[in-house]
Amino acid sequence: MMADITPVLERADANLPASLNRLFDLVRIKSISTDLAFKAECRKAAEWLVAELETLGFEASLRDTPGHPMVVAHHTAEKADAPHLLFYGHYDVQPVDPLNLWEAPPFEPSIKEIEPGRKVITGRGTADDKGQLMTFVEAVRAYKETRAALPCRITILFEGEEESGSPSLKPFLEANAGELKADYALVCDTSMWDRETPAISAGLRGLVGEEVTIRAADRDLHSGYFGGAAANPIHILSGILAGLHDETGRVTLEGFYDGVEETPPAIKAAWETLGQSAEKFLGEIGLSIPSGEKGRSVLELTWARPTAEVNGIAGGYTGEGFKTVIAAEASAKVSFRLVGKQDPDRIRESFRAYVRSKIPDDCSVEFQPHGGSPAIQLPYDSALLTTAKTALSDEWPKPAVVIGMGGSIPIVGDFQRMLGMESLLVGFGLSDDRIHSPNEKYELASFHKGIRSWIRILDAIGA
Amino acid sequence: MMADITPVLERADANLPASLNRLFDLVRIKSISTDLAFKAECRKAAEWLVAELETLGFEASLRDTPGHPMVVAHHTAEKADAPHLLFYGHYDVQPVDPLNLWEAPPFEPSIKEIEPGRKVITGRGTADDKGQLMTFVEAVRAYKETRAALPCRITILFEGEEESGSPSLKPFLEANAGELKADYALVCDTSMWDRETPAISAGLRGLVGEEVTIRAADRDLHSGYFGGAAANPIHILSGILAGLHDETGRVTLEGFYDGVEETPPAIKAAWETLGQSAEKFLGEIGLSIPSGEKGRSVLELTWARPTAEVNGIAGGYTGEGFKTVIAAEASAKVSFRLVGKQDPDRIRESFRAYVRSKIPDDCSVEFQPHGGSPAIQLPYDSALLTTAKTALSDEWPKPAVVIGMGGSIPIVGDFQRMLGMESLLVGFGLSDDRIHSPNEKYELASFHKGIRSWIRILDAIGA
Repeated sequence: MMADITPVLERADANLPASLNRLFDLVRIKSISTDLAFKAECRKAAEWLVAELETLGFEASLRDTPGHPMVVAHHTAEKADAPHLLFYGHYDVQPVDPLNLWEAPPFEPSIKEIEPGRKVITGRGTADDKGQLMTFVEAVRAYKETRAALPCRITILFEGEEESGSPSLKPFLEANAGELKADYALVCDTSMWDRETPAISAGLRGLVGEEVTIRAADRDLHSGYFGGAAANPIHILSGILAGLHDETGRVTLEGFYDGVEETPPAIKAAWETLGQSAEKFLGEIGLSIPSGEKGRSVLELTWARPTAEVNGIAGGYTGEGFKTVIAAEASAKVSFRLVGKQDPDRIRESFRAYVRSKIPDDCSVEFQPHGGSPAIQLPYDSALLTTAKTALSDEWPKPAVVIGMGGSIPIVGDFQRMLGMESLLVGFGLSDDRIHSPNEKYELASFHKGIRSWIRILDAIGA
Repeated sequence: MMADITPVLERADANLPASLNRLFDLVRIKSISTDLAFKAECRKAAEWLVAELETLGFEASLRDTPGHPMVVAHHTAEKADAPHLLFYGHYDVQPVDPLNLWEAPPFEPSIKEIEPGRKVITGRGTADDKGQLMTFVEAVRAYKETRAALPCRITILFEGEEESGSPSLKPFLEANAGELKADYALVCDTSMWDRETPAISAGLRGLVGEEVTIRAADRDLHSGYFGGAAANPIHILSGILAGLHDETGRVTLEGFYDGVEETPPAIKAAWETLGQSAEKFLGEIGLSIPSGEKGRSVLELTWARPTAEVNGIAGGYTGEGFKTVIAAEASAKVSFRLVGKQDPDRIRESFRAYVRSKIPDDCSVEFQPHGGSPAIQLPYDSALLTTAKTALSDEWPKPAVVIGMGGSIPIVGDFQRMLGMESLLVGFGLSDDRIHSPNEKYELASFHKGIRSWIRILDAIGA
């Protein structure tokens, strides 16, 4: 089989400069989905992808939604009985603030050598998820240019709302189930274990996002006149947020741990062989002390335990200098990462009930939901996973490992529940890619060997 | 004595339209002292005042400081042995955000009839403190235009940093003590009891301002990858702020209540006759439940008890939509109102020690001080206060009352300690003037009868 795909791999190698130029074109489009000011840019990214897929022989189309458009594309296989794969990625990116921390403008991608022999592609979305989805597109290109046909039948689904909770996704899957259902889903939005070790993610945390706004007086007050007598919404909010965790780091919400199970000892043991440590994991980001539940490893904390995190808080005067004001309102964005069988709706309700119980009778609270999805646990021993593990191990210096994952990719659950499809989660990001942060990058090796990895995986699945 | 000043009062009445035009000119100058973008505007306000005082026969000058300039002016009295008064006000104003809540542009003053027969002057600084200081300037004008001479020798001191902690004031008082020392200080930056009842403030809370910034990871993090293991500075900050008060509303800082004494029963009894209630006081701002220490009246809470208030908080993603980020840093602006003999320096140190005790070893904290001044308690029975009380009672529908005050006017303590001067605190603001908030206003009656009040007070002190 190796002999068979060598020309395809070589074609991918030869294509690399042009592949990079195409990725740069996509990165230059400012497709920030959470900010309506960039609505047209999101559409432009979708249109760019449709055009790109059409040149590869896909029957591709842009599909409007109430939010940002979907891209759907279909391509036949060489053999009629070849497996049918649905490839998923997202073309939207995170906001770029604080802009002043970027070393180069976020939407002007470039190649940078960060140490001898190690080059990275810089820019917003290079790792999350434009660089990743383009590894698959370029793998298809290498096949088409070498053999004219593909080893699998392929459907592509690119969405533009992944960074804003995917509000249009479920209705779209429902309305287009017949068109989108395949034998397996391939999702490319995850990371490698390290620069030499590819990884397949078998566990994904779920996510519940909530925005809470507390209102007290009907205007901002002078803290001299009213301080000591008037409710201060920042105090109320601080108390609520501080009460979310107990002194052992556990989340205090009623019923929060319903459906959370301890990680099986065999899996914990496998994770221990990876050589991760708090010093190493946190050292990369300038920290050293695990902050969550006491007595658990960082892998367990980030892969197998649920969390409550405040992602943003605002209230009162926050400009230069000082203003002795008691704010009329204060707000926070809070998210919960879920594991096991935790129910997103029940978690949201428990949070809201807790918050309401802390609001004085003369104040009010408003909630705004921002997405919710349960955790996913994929089987560790499926044929699909085993095939992919071998293909990845052939490409990279070290054998592929099967890991958990702290982030949330709600679509994996949707594919499972709505379309009855098992997903394969393969991605080439690294933990220091600074996704969602200033100075996002994607390793040039991730892009190049990522393309080659998909060539091998498609070949192995097709065989 | 009444007969004697009638022409002066009548002149003030006749001058009113022109007096208002002059006030409007001053309000139009955007002298926001906390924001360096408005530095030139602050200077412009000072220059405007110097020119205005010169036309009234003052020997007036602008005095540079490391911050915004001072205005100092001197005027002789008719008789050589007349009392010497130092009048203090401030020409700087608070920032205007949130701008969208203003019904009219903040620096375009106008007269508005808010109910039949009740007119107000609208705009930032109309009540705090431009309208107030102009009552005195216009009182002097009426004297000068009627009698050519003044009943007291007058020195005027206007500063431009009152809203930003008066950093230049103490050095300036020290360097110019000989020039500024007078028999008494008159300070016009306070309120009436209600629209019919003038008030003299005998107690003022002190103020300590602190900005605290907590830093954790060296960048903003993805809450999926790192959530549950990496320190979240918003959590740390929330815990710190929530811990500032216990469940009875008392401030928990060590030594915080050192120097705080219970209000004497006679004074509490006098306050009770004012007919204030939590419903009335808080009802004006859309609240009903006193939020501070339990079991105390709102007058006691705001006049005689110390507080800890968070005036602003910021961290993480606070824009539209949602961003699953763990912030690298979070910050809050915190202020303490002081009473009795509480020591600002010790309170600041106690706060910092408390905060430091809550910072994990791998995180850091930075403090920025924003002003500090002890509380002031003036004698309830001085000759000056008694004289002013009678003069005010002659002008207004109801007799003047002697009250406490929740706000802080640090200069009163500086006058006492540095220049050995007793202060008289008379002002014509109202609690619903929305100072420091959008839609600030000053009653037209406050301005008009304020001018007349100063004419009476100057006359009584001179006699």
